[in-house]
Amino acid sequence: MDLSPLVVENDSKIVLVVLDGLGGMADAEHGTELEDARTPNLDRLAAEGVTGLLEPVGPGITPGSGPGHLALFGYDPTEFELGRGTLSAAGLGFDLRPGDVAARGNLCTIDAEGNVTDRRAGRIPDDRARPLIERLQQGVSVDGVEVSFRHERQHRLLVAWRGPDLDPRVADTDPQHTGVPPLEPRALDPAAERMAQVAAATVARARRVLAHEPVANGLLLRGFDSQRELPSFAERYGLRPAAIAVYPMYRGISALLGFEVLGPPEDLAATVDLLAKHWGEADFFFVHHKDPDAAGEDGNREAKIAAIERLDAEIPRIVELGPTVIAVTGDHATPAQMAAHSWHPVPVLVHGERCGRDDVERFGERWCGGGGLGFRPSKELMALLLANAGRLAKYGA
Amino acid sequence: MDLSPLVVENDSKIVLVVLDGLGGMADAEHGTELEDARTPNLDRLAAEGVTGLLEPVGPGITPGSGPGHLALFGYDPTEFELGRGTLSAAGLGFDLRPGDVAARGNLCTIDAEGNVTDRRAGRIPDDRARPLIERLQQGVSVDGVEVSFRHERQHRLLVAWRGPDLDPRVADTDPQHTGVPPLEPRALDPAAERMAQVAAATVARARRVLAHEPVANGLLLRGFDSQRELPSFAERYGLRPAAIAVYPMYRGISALLGFEVLGPPEDLAATVDLLAKHWGEADFFFVHHKDPDAAGEDGNREAKIAAIERLDAEIPRIVELGPTVIAVTGDHATPAQMAAHSWHPVPVLVHGERCGRDDVERFGERWCGGGGLGFRPSKELMALLLANAGRLAKYGA
Repeated sequence: MDLSPLVVENDSKIVLVVLDGLGGMADAEHGTELEDARTPNLDRLAAEGVTGLLEPVGPGITPGSGPGHLALFGYDPTEFELGRGTLSAAGLGFDLRPGDVAARGNLCTIDAEGNVTDRRAGRIPDDRARPLIERLQQGVSVDGVEVSFRHERQHRLLVAWRGPDLDPRVADTDPQHTGVPPLEPRALDPAAERMAQVAAATVARARRVLAHEPVANGLLLRGFDSQRELPSFAERYGLRPAAIAVYPMYRGISALLGFEVLGPPEDLAATVDLLAKHWGEADFFFVHHKDPDAAGEDGNREAKIAAIERLDAEIPRIVELGPTVIAVTGDHATPAQMAAHSWHPVPVLVHGERCGRDDVERFGERWCGGGGLGFRPSKELMALLLANAGRLAKYGA
Repeated sequence: MDLSPLVVENDSKIVLVVLDGLGGMADAEHGTELEDARTPNLDRLAAEGVTGLLEPVGPGITPGSGPGHLALFGYDPTEFELGRGTLSAAGLGFDLRPGDVAARGNLCTIDAEGNVTDRRAGRIPDDRARPLIERLQQGVSVDGVEVSFRHERQHRLLVAWRGPDLDPRVADTDPQHTGVPPLEPRALDPAAERMAQVAAATVARARRVLAHEPVANGLLLRGFDSQRELPSFAERYGLRPAAIAVYPMYRGISALLGFEVLGPPEDLAATVDLLAKHWGEADFFFVHHKDPDAAGEDGNREAKIAAIERLDAEIPRIVELGPTVIAVTGDHATPAQMAAHSWHPVPVLVHGERCGRDDVERFGERWCGGGGLGFRPSKELMALLLANAGRLAKYGA
């Protein structure tokens, strides 16, 4: 239901901590990464608070980062769509204009047969990737179109095109697995033929520029998108929202929703430093921790557990700030066994004076399933956070 | 989904016991009122039956009594709205006609500075309130409008206006807390300017009539509303429904849905007496117990526990009547810590020959969360009751 007629403002503060890719998949050998992580601080919040399981988009649906976050912010991800290109542009502060098309690029490794051998070019470090992106910017041109390359982090970059007749309905070129060639950019609508040709030319010229690179010698494109407008989070909920995220894409989605974007911080500790420094300036803080997802995507169970434990260690500093409500959850699952996002549910805890209590004493999927928040779509979380912060008036007489 | 094509009639009997404001909020010191109450009879029904948690209107939404009950009766409370004025009029048997406007009035206490010091005039007893309402009826007149005052219980009354050009879109004058003056009746739509003026004149004259009263010297108005039509419960479900409630508003909502309204009973024991007396005359009985909500709104945890225990003590008498299905739940939560309605989920139990069983042995929020009915919107309960009573045919071939 539309909450806006019920929204009231007060001086409460809400912190939403998102561990990217938090959800896991227990199997015969192991619990989920969260279940097996040592998380005394999160467990304490779970014991003192209420818990549940969230389904980000729908049953069986594996969400991308955009839908996963939109849902957490209370935007139905089947109603509001975001391409990765739009997100990347927003995250980098790139001035994407109406008519432009943007896509997420990955530097990748391609062998002599033309097959992709590493979709992420060995997660090439920033200092080696940056000069390559500059060479692409210098060396790649397409007739009648302005092409822009911007580095994000590691192998990730933004590619944006400005020119007449560009339509974003072009299929991804990332084949999603190795041992096969990149896909051709294919128009998903006749109106996008021109854009498909421009993308093909871009990829071909990029391969020429990178031809002698040992690792990062190819370019994959996905998430072709144009500029979108989203309803303001601040207006929807009567909140002053702020976002703190190391990675550009998450700053991007926050910027699109009208959050004040703080930082960027260098790492998790700096993320919490920024939270403390700007504590007086907002009343809703989105705190993003990317590492569990990155480790999960690498299939590295131990690294994902360690990333969760690093976040746990920062919880006392967040709690000391005295939020009215603190919620901890993820945008989707990234089980290390799958080395990819998945549809599995994501645990959530809500902690505050009015949250009530359930019998759940530990933070983890198998315990949260019996918690007092139940099993529900992620998009319902925002209403619960507002209610816990005393920001929703009574409905009906 | 629309159940009506599936509805079949039989000689089963369903009893729906509603403990108003049943839901609570556990905290570091206590369980919820229900968890901590001694309820051997409800626990036995829970152990022999199935349990779950209900969310009355939606996540984070704090329901008024109208939406809370509509949902339990299977009416989507975001589709069917009821003002308190309509409910009060129906409960009192007041003949509200098309074009009339009705509001809930509260006698209140106002100090020398014009600030509200008690929004409920010390919950003034009936025998002291009744003569004051009569004085209002004698002493308050507004040009061109017929104003009616009817006492409900304690500080509560119905105020109804009949005359040309009255539009109910007027904001409440109840400021919802003390230490501030009553709000001015404000038109929420230009069409309601006249009604706002009529309401202001009514309040001003009421203050003059009550000027020398020590406690009940003011009048607050809320829930301005006009007559509404609701689809008949009897037709929707093929049931002969009857309602037994001490308080007028709950008789009112039942009357609007076409229930036969029995009584009114004086108290809970008389409520169950009426149920027994009229057992042969209906096949769906709505039994309402107001006291847990009243105690919760007063912030009186012990009184709320006692009110729940009083209901528990009546359960054997209800069970002895031999209902096919008995369900026990609440219309919303009223945690004593909040002294107000809240959004927290409400436990439910369903007991009958075909209900199945779960592992829940006690009736209370933290146990019901793991029960066999799951966590679901309150509006889904009616279909489960009909199914348990053998009143829903198979869907599809």
